[in-house]
Amino acid sequence: MRTGLTPAEALRLILEEVPVLPPETVAATAALGRVLAEPVASSRRLPPYDNSAMDGYALRLADVVGAGSGRPAELHVAFEVAAGAVADKPLGEGEAARIFTGAPLPPRADAVVRQEDTERDGDRVRIRVVPEPRENVRDAGEDVEVGDRVLEPGVAIGPAELGLLASLGRSVVAVHQSPRVAILSGGDELVEPDGDVAGGRIVSSNSWSLAAHCRQLGAEPLYLGIARDTPDDVEAHLRAGMGMDVLVSSAGVSVGDRDHVRGALEGLGCRLLFWGVEMKPGYPLAFGRFESGGRALVFGLPGNPVSAMVTFEQFVRPALRRMMGFRSLFRPRVQARLAEDLRKKAGRLHFVRVQLERRGEEIVATSTGNQSSGVLRSMALAQGLLIFPAEETRLEAGDTVTVQVLDADFLAAATPGF
Amino acid sequence: MRTGLTPAEALRLILEEVPVLPPETVAATAALGRVLAEPVASSRRLPPYDNSAMDGYALRLADVVGAGSGRPAELHVAFEVAAGAVADKPLGEGEAARIFTGAPLPPRADAVVRQEDTERDGDRVRIRVVPEPRENVRDAGEDVEVGDRVLEPGVAIGPAELGLLASLGRSVVAVHQSPRVAILSGGDELVEPDGDVAGGRIVSSNSWSLAAHCRQLGAEPLYLGIARDTPDDVEAHLRAGMGMDVLVSSAGVSVGDRDHVRGALEGLGCRLLFWGVEMKPGYPLAFGRFESGGRALVFGLPGNPVSAMVTFEQFVRPALRRMMGFRSLFRPRVQARLAEDLRKKAGRLHFVRVQLERRGEEIVATSTGNQSSGVLRSMALAQGLLIFPAEETRLEAGDTVTVQVLDADFLAAATPGF
Repeated sequence: MRTGLTPAEALRLILEEVPVLPPETVAATAALGRVLAEPVASSRRLPPYDNSAMDGYALRLADVVGAGSGRPAELHVAFEVAAGAVADKPLGEGEAARIFTGAPLPPRADAVVRQEDTERDGDRVRIRVVPEPRENVRDAGEDVEVGDRVLEPGVAIGPAELGLLASLGRSVVAVHQSPRVAILSGGDELVEPDGDVAGGRIVSSNSWSLAAHCRQLGAEPLYLGIARDTPDDVEAHLRAGMGMDVLVSSAGVSVGDRDHVRGALEGLGCRLLFWGVEMKPGYPLAFGRFESGGRALVFGLPGNPVSAMVTFEQFVRPALRRMMGFRSLFRPRVQARLAEDLRKKAGRLHFVRVQLERRGEEIVATSTGNQSSGVLRSMALAQGLLIFPAEETRLEAGDTVTVQVLDADFLAAATPGF
Repeated sequence: MRTGLTPAEALRLILEEVPVLPPETVAATAALGRVLAEPVASSRRLPPYDNSAMDGYALRLADVVGAGSGRPAELHVAFEVAAGAVADKPLGEGEAARIFTGAPLPPRADAVVRQEDTERDGDRVRIRVVPEPRENVRDAGEDVEVGDRVLEPGVAIGPAELGLLASLGRSVVAVHQSPRVAILSGGDELVEPDGDVAGGRIVSSNSWSLAAHCRQLGAEPLYLGIARDTPDDVEAHLRAGMGMDVLVSSAGVSVGDRDHVRGALEGLGCRLLFWGVEMKPGYPLAFGRFESGGRALVFGLPGNPVSAMVTFEQFVRPALRRMMGFRSLFRPRVQARLAEDLRKKAGRLHFVRVQLERRGEEIVATSTGNQSSGVLRSMALAQGLLIFPAEETRLEAGDTVTVQVLDADFLAAATPGF
């Protein structure tokens, strides 16, 4: 087992092991946020026929040559075509058809004049503005022709893609499976959020935060509860999760005498590929995979709430995104101006929790204060994680720094832009 | 009723009418993605007691003064403290306690030395590195003291906030209600996605795309189906939705003779505040509110799929975000280099569907092609909407343009940044 990896080495090693999950076929409406696993070709023409883009009058341009506002052409309103009607009656010479948005263009009509540009008088209509050829006409097939590939594998399905699937009559669609993620925590000091904390017990908050992280990503968390510090209980919990796609233990995999996770994992057929990443918070991160008995990729996260969240963010999140078929795996990053001096020892990369603030064109990053890995409040306050490189020891106020943006709302604009 | 508003006027008028919805109390785990509607103060101290940040030995610094790697101090390992145990036994002179991460610090101990910096020999331990005062000790209350306000109203609840709520034992929490959004479409030419399109009928794709839009935002869509083009059917559909928070009709509210929506709305007690916004796509947008009988804010969207999506994006989305209590209402925006010339008439603001591509430091925007409002495929291809201002008629290749980013994945980084 390797140890003391850099974060970049750890991430590369993890992503090498991560498969894109195979497809499943789901109701299209349940596919929102999933990634398409098949090409979608059209068996339809859209729109199915030439139709009007406006409420107005369909006409033959030959009948209105030379007309204009001073000299309107006058046509006979021969019939009316509503949306949803069949237009099989052709326009005769000197005839117009009253037509509504979406209605099929009658045969021989070659343009539509907008209602606002006409004057109606009984069964006559005066054309004050002569349209261009095909003006206000939507051509059959202008969106999609039969056989067109309209969506490619790898596309994330959003509202527009669902609208397109609907318009093609596709009510089921193949998407990449969502990873099922078993989550467990461990320790005799832990209780569930509704538990009794008398005598210094503390709540296993990782279960809620990591499950929420999974749900936000579109993965399916399966919370296995708290394993007590006995080999049997740890093994029973791990056994319940080893058949999932991913097993995330924040029981901690450490060198401690009382840590039974590593032994239990190895006993169950899991090979640990590394333990220990040169980062802070989050050094005691372990990663492995089952070589027999199970199938889960195993992340042994540190038990401290902040360390658990930061290591999930850096390693588990990109792995889950890859499993789901997403091409983009990482958070947006910004360059920010540092508001204060930061110091550390050389050797480990630090992820510093920072608040971000826009000041004019610039983004200013300020540490959330106490960076102890027990201080979950600082994680809630943070909009981003500042990357303090391993070999650096000093960052000064005013320096330009790189920040991973955790809070998508920070990127939202303050105005609509019009 | 006003007409011919600019998009900015329309948005201002809409946001003036939009309330932030009142609170509801939900299970904390169901609050993910919602906005907190109460301050959260702690009834607990976190951590509840001084505890060890490492596996190692708790000791009294007075016993190891002057020790070092060449001259290790030797202490008697008097007892062991595990996480979850109660530490009521004080350390005596010359004594150390074996201690594990998270375990309470025994009385009189004033630092913890890491296991790696010691040598154990039976019931004796040699201390090779003398810790600083309080080193490897997490102080009681360093995260949260009793009475601290740890979360403020208006905070969006993410994984870290849920972890914090869990650690405080808060299993229910007050959040702003999610808007219930009635969605209906209308037109005799429309069928549901599984319907028969023979004879030129077309699928009502707006129901799927707008419902998906709502779900993505965290609002609750309620799809009322397709109203036929009769006053009675239109009224029955509107009646079913008027008690919701928002009613979105993509039946179209137009000047057409066959449009029964406007009359039906007014008959039911809805006052239309405006119809017609100087934009393309999306001119025939209407907005109103019930003055009696109902409570919904009413958006009459154009029926064309692209117009419906663009007007939803510009007006309904910010309204729903405000209702949910979010402070940020708008999409991120980027400045991009235009890849081609664009032309239009002066007078209306155009939202041009564009694909975005990073080229080095720059973002390049390319139109998705056919900008007809019937062409839904262009919406699926678009990563953003370019704002082509009302009075401009020409944008040239190479110009810097403003683009609203619809596809959050476009902002994702290609690498983790370390």
